[in-house]
Amino acid sequence: MNAIHQTLTALSAGEISVEEALLKIRKEPLESIGYANIDSHRAARQGVPEVVYGANKTKEQLLGILRAMMAAGQEVILATHIDPEVGAFVAERLPMRYDPASRLGVIGECPAPDGLGTVLVVTAGTADIPVAEEAATTAEYLGNRVKRIYDLGVSTPQALARHLEDVLSASVIIAIAGMEGALACVLAGYADCPIIAVPTSIGYGASFGGLAALLSMLTSCSSGVSVVNIDNGFGAAYQASMINHMRKRD
Amino acid sequence: MNAIHQTLTALSAGEISVEEALLKIRKEPLESIGYANIDSHRAARQGVPEVVYGANKTKEQLLGILRAMMAAGQEVILATHIDPEVGAFVAERLPMRYDPASRLGVIGECPAPDGLGTVLVVTAGTADIPVAEEAATTAEYLGNRVKRIYDLGVSTPQALARHLEDVLSASVIIAIAGMEGALACVLAGYADCPIIAVPTSIGYGASFGGLAALLSMLTSCSSGVSVVNIDNGFGAAYQASMINHMRKRD
Amino acid sequence: MNAIHQTLTALSAGEISVEEALLKIRKEPLESIGYANIDSHRAARQGVPEVVYGANKTKEQLLGILRAMMAAGQEVILATHIDPEVGAFVAERLPMRYDPASRLGVIGECPAPDGLGTVLVVTAGTADIPVAEEAATTAEYLGNRVKRIYDLGVSTPQALARHLEDVLSASVIIAIAGMEGALACVLAGYADCPIIAVPTSIGYGASFGGLAALLSMLTSCSSGVSVVNIDNGFGAAYQASMINHMRKRD
Amino acid sequence: MNAIHQTLTALSAGEISVEEALLKIRKEPLESIGYANIDSHRAARQGVPEVVYGANKTKEQLLGILRAMMAAGQEVILATHIDPEVGAFVAERLPMRYDPASRLGVIGECPAPDGLGTVLVVTAGTADIPVAEEAATTAEYLGNRVKRIYDLGVSTPQALARHLEDVLSASVIIAIAGMEGALACVLAGYADCPIIAVPTSIGYGASFGGLAALLSMLTSCSSGVSVVNIDNGFGAAYQASMINHMRKRD
Amino acid sequence: MNAIHQTLTALSAGEISVEEALLKIRKEPLESIGYANIDSHRAARQGVPEVVYGANKTKEQLLGILRAMMAAGQEVILATHIDPEVGAFVAERLPMRYDPASRLGVIGECPAPDGLGTVLVVTAGTADIPVAEEAATTAEYLGNRVKRIYDLGVSTPQALARHLEDVLSASVIIAIAGMEGALACVLAGYADCPIIAVPTSIGYGASFGGLAALLSMLTSCSSGVSVVNIDNGFGAAYQASMINHMRKRD
Amino acid sequence: MNAIHQTLTALSAGEISVEEALLKIRKEPLESIGYANIDSHRAARQGVPEVVYGANKTKEQLLGILRAMMAAGQEVILATHIDPEVGAFVAERLPMRYDPASRLGVIGECPAPDGLGTVLVVTAGTADIPVAEEAATTAEYLGNRVKRIYDLGVSTPQALARHLEDVLSASVIIAIAGMEGALACVLAGYADCPIIAVPTSIGYGASFGGLAALLSMLTSCSSGVSVVNIDNGFGAAYQASMINHMRKRD
Amino acid sequence: MNAIHQTLTALSAGEISVEEALLKIRKEPLESIGYANIDSHRAARQGVPEVVYGANKTKEQLLGILRAMMAAGQEVILATHIDPEVGAFVAERLPMRYDPASRLGVIGECPAPDGLGTVLVVTAGTADIPVAEEAATTAEYLGNRVKRIYDLGVSTPQALARHLEDVLSASVIIAIAGMEGALACVLAGYADCPIIAVPTSIGYGASFGGLAALLSMLTSCSSGVSVVNIDNGFGAAYQASMINHMRKRD
Amino acid sequence: MNAIHQTLTALSAGEISVEEALLKIRKEPLESIGYANIDSHRAARQGVPEVVYGANKTKEQLLGILRAMMAAGQEVILATHIDPEVGAFVAERLPMRYDPASRLGVIGECPAPDGLGTVLVVTAGTADIPVAEEAATTAEYLGNRVKRIYDLGVSTPQALARHLEDVLSASVIIAIAGMEGALACVLAGYADCPIIAVPTSIGYGASFGGLAALLSMLTSCSSGVSVVNIDNGFGAAYQASMINHMRKRD
Repeated sequence: MNAIHQTLTALSAGEISVEEALLKIRKEPLESIGYANIDSHRAARQGVPEVVYGANKTKEQLLGILRAMMAAGQEVILATHIDPEVGAFVAERLPMRYDPASRLGVIGECPAPDGLGTVLVVTAGTADIPVAEEAATTAEYLGNRVKRIYDLGVSTPQALARHLEDVLSASVIIAIAGMEGALACVLAGYADCPIIAVPTSIGYGASFGGLAALLSMLTSCSSGVSVVNIDNGFGAAYQASMINHMRKRD
Repeated sequence: MNAIHQTLTALSAGEISVEEALLKIRKEPLESIGYANIDSHRAARQGVPEVVYGANKTKEQLLGILRAMMAAGQEVILATHIDPEVGAFVAERLPMRYDPASRLGVIGECPAPDGLGTVLVVTAGTADIPVAEEAATTAEYLGNRVKRIYDLGVSTPQALARHLEDVLSASVIIAIAGMEGALACVLAGYADCPIIAVPTSIGYGASFGGLAALLSMLTSCSSGVSVVNIDNGFGAAYQASMINHMRKRD
Repeated sequence: MNAIHQTLTALSAGEISVEEALLKIRKEPLESIGYANIDSHRAARQGVPEVVYGANKTKEQLLGILRAMMAAGQEVILATHIDPEVGAFVAERLPMRYDPASRLGVIGECPAPDGLGTVLVVTAGTADIPVAEEAATTAEYLGNRVKRIYDLGVSTPQALARHLEDVLSASVIIAIAGMEGALACVLAGYADCPIIAVPTSIGYGASFGGLAALLSMLTSCSSGVSVVNIDNGFGAAYQASMINHMRKRD
Repeated sequence: MNAIHQTLTALSAGEISVEEALLKIRKEPLESIGYANIDSHRAARQGVPEVVYGANKTKEQLLGILRAMMAAGQEVILATHIDPEVGAFVAERLPMRYDPASRLGVIGECPAPDGLGTVLVVTAGTADIPVAEEAATTAEYLGNRVKRIYDLGVSTPQALARHLEDVLSASVIIAIAGMEGALACVLAGYADCPIIAVPTSIGYGASFGGLAALLSMLTSCSSGVSVVNIDNGFGAAYQASMINHMRKRD
Repeated sequence: MNAIHQTLTALSAGEISVEEALLKIRKEPLESIGYANIDSHRAARQGVPEVVYGANKTKEQLLGILRAMMAAGQEVILATHIDPEVGAFVAERLPMRYDPASRLGVIGECPAPDGLGTVLVVTAGTADIPVAEEAATTAEYLGNRVKRIYDLGVSTPQALARHLEDVLSASVIIAIAGMEGALACVLAGYADCPIIAVPTSIGYGASFGGLAALLSMLTSCSSGVSVVNIDNGFGAAYQASMINHMRKRD
Repeated sequence: MNAIHQTLTALSAGEISVEEALLKIRKEPLESIGYANIDSHRAARQGVPEVVYGANKTKEQLLGILRAMMAAGQEVILATHIDPEVGAFVAERLPMRYDPASRLGVIGECPAPDGLGTVLVVTAGTADIPVAEEAATTAEYLGNRVKRIYDLGVSTPQALARHLEDVLSASVIIAIAGMEGALACVLAGYADCPIIAVPTSIGYGASFGGLAALLSMLTSCSSGVSVVNIDNGFGAAYQASMINHMRKRD
Repeated sequence: MNAIHQTLTALSAGEISVEEALLKIRKEPLESIGYANIDSHRAARQGVPEVVYGANKTKEQLLGILRAMMAAGQEVILATHIDPEVGAFVAERLPMRYDPASRLGVIGECPAPDGLGTVLVVTAGTADIPVAEEAATTAEYLGNRVKRIYDLGVSTPQALARHLEDVLSASVIIAIAGMEGALACVLAGYADCPIIAVPTSIGYGASFGGLAALLSMLTSCSSGVSVVNIDNGFGAAYQASMINHMRKRD
Repeated sequence: MNAIHQTLTALSAGEISVEEALLKIRKEPLESIGYANIDSHRAARQGVPEVVYGANKTKEQLLGILRAMMAAGQEVILATHIDPEVGAFVAERLPMRYDPASRLGVIGECPAPDGLGTVLVVTAGTADIPVAEEAATTAEYLGNRVKRIYDLGVSTPQALARHLEDVLSASVIIAIAGMEGALACVLAGYADCPIIAVPTSIGYGASFGGLAALLSMLTSCSSGVSVVNIDNGFGAAYQASMINHMRKRD
């Protein structure tokens, strides 16, 4: 029985006046008034990971947060953007597996996939793999079957042809590319599922830290493509998982 | 029976040699070889609209394209980005309904919605409505139930509270905002469905033609948001419809 | 007696159960729960203007909004960013005074100033005057004594010297300048009050639509300066008025 | 009795001629002519800090400046933007307390707050805390009561609700956020006091070193917000303190 | 016999002294000294067009220039970037054929193609056609066989397949595309000839007047692509013609 | 005898006290204290023009300003950036000669040149001529002998060779170019006098309104070049005239 | 005999049905269907190098790739963008010559030049040499005679004159320059062959990492120039080699 | 007697034919033909420094260049942009004095000043001093009397007043400032000599590496200001010296 329920009960019992009840209700935080379901999509069902954004946190801060979450009974935790030094520090003290390439740390077992289909993670080049691993691992820990196609290239049409079946059967595609970012546009010519494009900061010169790929992906002539921030593998996987877990609402 | 099937039949019947068959197959366009399903997501089922991008087309060009599509039996056609003059010209000659605000022209009847739930189209201000109408009408013609919430604002928290139920029950949200584009970020704090954010060119000064909203939406601290091009209501609706029609793939 | 008060009274009277009360409260919009004071700074005391943002509204829309506000008893209304055509249309139908230069429309009488001191509106050049008038009139209608110094220049030190007393005695200064925007920096060397800097889009070439002035004002080496959007005279006046009406809070 | 007073006295006493007086006056620096009050807002009352900008100064330079100020009787000194190495060097030689996170060094006792109310320093994330500490400590040393709310987030509406009372009762709010910078916009929907927004360089990809937050804050649809330079916690606190010490001027 | 030859002859004949000869030579313009072949690639062989850049020239200026060239015996003249009004003015007074779409004016007969092969002009969309016509007509008048493929698209792989033979047999390809400019990258995956990419200003929002296509084309992952200025169909054709007329040099 | 002189005389005469003198002096504007020579470089000697910046001034404003200056005895006046409509309006009412191309208006006779040598105004193309005329006429009215070389080009080395003597003998060169702005760099390879470079907004595509020329000129590898704002012919001429009138100072 | 040939033979022999043949063909990768000539320009004739892009590859990855290529019989291999550490690692284990300045690694013998003429590699300064060496070595290994002119400068016209013969007789010119990038424009005034311009990131301040040179080269007033990415010596050489190997196609 | 003189003498003597003379002359580099005075401004009179740009040169390269120049009899040499490591290396082997702050190395004695007056080098802050020292030392070695005013500030009007006499009597002013760059604008309000403005990369946040100061200085409302590249102290001094050595030309 939460705070507002107590207040109403006390009012109903005549223990407090209407004015006192009104005052109490005004002082309650929103969630106690019944908006708790607002956050329900983040609520921790058993086996579903809680996500911690690890960047710009000291190693002590991250350790503390993870310990608190584990103490609160959270069985699966995903922490992103962890610097190697911080990752090593935490991995020595907690049962966290840390991958320096994708800068992800995971605690607990990866859940069984329960989505509508497969999330296909494709990169244009090998240098995009760390962002792709951030996306792929995140998607797996959010309950998706994931298939990786790395270094597909767009300058070699044969490569695409070789993977056409995967592209055609995917539930959602995460297209990850730096440089000119044409991968998303090219895939969209074949696929019939939503594509989340992730520009990466890979490249030099006029790629301007991912700007070329970002603008290219945003202005893609192909329908069915939306874009997340440069290098944001996590964000792409988060939305891809939402899409792959769509269900009847009406 | 398509061209390659004929070739193989002829080879099987001994009418042509292996070399002749090989030569014929090499000369065939890709689709005749069996990749026709590549384009299956655009194939015209009865009642599903074909989409024409109307910008930078002369009125004669657009009229010709639409006439050809109608002659080919296409019953529902959606044409986007039509300038008013072109729209009026076509509307006088074809049974196309044209809306100058959203610059959309539609031919045929809007199909009954058959998606998983409701596509919620939200704008931050009244000036964003033309982009929103492009999105909403597109979504409707792609078979989605659409609910519009216009001029919600983010500076008036009460307004959001008033529409909380719609936000919480939506299947996909299209969040349309110019200026600082905070709408997507704020909605993502409440919603548990994918949000497609559409920055608009509405604003002045440091909005730099939508750049402020675009960057803001891309770097949103909230998960579950992806972004399309500035003012691209059509693109947002196209992907929203894909998401709202997700189905079991595995 | 608002909705929640009615609900609590009914509960207190035993007319509804605790569960029914809880359900009703959850469904109420936020303001009825007691957060109405959130918006109190916009609440209409007699004589204090309500502000309407007029840009991108049709003339019919603006007329309708203003009529509704007048019907609701609002005596003083300020409408900003009204295009001349829209302004003329409305001014013919309502007792609104419209100034094409500042694009402001005002209905009702300007309130007597009740602030801590004088809001000083300074421009670097004559071309900045429309933005300055938007600021000055807004500040007046928000209850401030306003003094205007236009075309002060920064390349003529004598001009500044001539107005030093005004600068030294102001309560808040709104410094409006295009081109290189040095006005804010120069004034801050003399003034001992907060300065709200407004970059304007006046200029050509490397002023890039106000970008030069904006960056210059943001990186000003002088303390006590904050900045609003390019050409945003209204926003500067709004905050200046807040500052000029500061009161003991503790 | 300053230089010009002496000159006039000598002229009055017939000790020098009018021409000699004129010559002397012309050679005097401005302040001796009576413009000393120009700088009065920086004048050192006992207990009010003098501020030194420490960036790009060598450790010897900073040490020398601080020693000179202490020798001149300045009891409270605030030095900003001190690199850790320089800070450690000075802290070994002077009674300066140095905080590496905010890069602030303070000498002397913090004055008792004497402002109109509380300066509320809010950050969107934990990574913004160093900028916030620069702001908060500066505000405290300028005589303000300061309340800190760190890592409020805007993607978790409950968090804001939990701090609503602080937001509603603040005298001035310093809103510090990187990434998309929506914090200022969201707070402005609730607060009725001036908000100084500080974009931070926290973020990656399309945040472009704070540009996304800067543009977002400048184009905020909410009134009552002004902006300072990226990461400029000191500047925000300086103006916030000015606002919190407003007094009757007319 | 040019000026320097005369000078040397006079010196040889003893008519002038060494010093006089030296002085005369110093005063001669460069071309008379023997550097005339510097400009040989622009020298007018019969039938080869001279090119006039028509932008920002008044109609009287352009008319005068063309008349002077015709009077000088130039039989084929190509004038680019002519505004319609100027084009109409000149076309009434000279035998110039003017095409408003490509803004090209041509005088004289198009020469027979004498290049190594075919210059293939490809556009991604129909809106790119004016730039393509500028390129194609320029190439024709510079003596190239030209083949046009307009509105190829990159989102429809079949379209490319249909034109594969043209792509594979071209001598040089001019790839013209706005929006995300992926056309150049995609073509480079198939072609084995040089590709000159022309970004166009076609697009909206984040295409930023052709910037997206420009950056995308510059950072293309495919080899064999170089880029000219946005909308510069003439420049692409000029270099393509040079390439198509390569000859043994060693 | 100016105000401060009067004050000191009165004090010397015992008519006022030291305190009264001090008060009077404090209230005087700076120039009366003896800083009048600060502005001496703008002081109007007979025949030297006063300059009025005409942009963003209404025709009535400009007419009024010019009338006031003429009434004050100013014989030569130069007004820049006058829109054609304003120029025509003023030219009908005052003896002002107005040139629509350069947007300059001049009143009075051009003074005889009295500088050290010739100011050479060079443009890369014909489209740069309006900016060049603004520069050339300004320089003439500031007392300089001016030589114009228009449409020199940098792609035709012979053209430069033809004008080498002018380049080598100039006192100051104003180099005006749009597009890639290489003119300044090329001239600096030959000239041995200061070069003021003026980027122009002439160009298209990646010239981005003069940005390409501006950056190119700023980063020129040649010494002796400085740059003014895009299209700022007046500013270049003003500084060129200062340089051409240098005199012994020590 | 490749896969599709086998399928057709089996069909012809009655071993499989038409339907089975169709199914098999659909599943084959594109190249087996006969599009193998698509990639013919990369096919390894004896002595022609295969190119590996070495950036962002680990030393183990690069070693593995090169070993696989050598095992496959590739006699000449060119690897670009290899970091020194990776280069040293590989050079110890394979017969690869590594040049830290150009970051190129080469395996096998450089082929004899077989192009139409000489590829001239010119740099504006000495700092551009690493990019030039990447270009020059690449061109040599692609079968071109290469001549290097380094540190030509554009501010010293004599230097250009000294190399005029090389410029006039080149088959293709690769013009490499940072800062203001005027080299390409200046060379184009003399040369009558295609120029591939390479902007470099050399410079400081307003060169913005090569942006100034890039924009300058793109907007060059000279015809015959196209541009590749900043610092992309390899790409320039690749296209230059294509041009230098042009052959009769019709 | 140079090469062309010899050729003409031989022709005059009948030793060679006119055709042989013509051929020889064509082959001579430009300077031998009599254009040597083109470079006269760089010609080394005794005591005038030759300038070497030291950036991106290896220590061996710089040592070699300097040794060659000394061997050629150059008595005074100025080398700019030398990295500390390179500077130390050279200073151990040659009599070069190296200053790590300004990165300048000087060989030989500074010449006596012979200009028209004093070059005043002013900085806004202490952090701008390295750029200022590069400018000041360069100016001294080019024969100018230099006066330095460092850390003048623009937010303290008294500071400017204190140095007014220097400002008013300078021959040329080099105004060096980062952040908002208002120094140039403010000085131009007082000075009556040319001002060369040097934006510096000092600053943070919205100064964007000097962009804010650059744009501000370019758009300065004050006449008489021109601008050089960010941090280009050398370039400013070079042109300032040219201006300070102006002489009668006509």
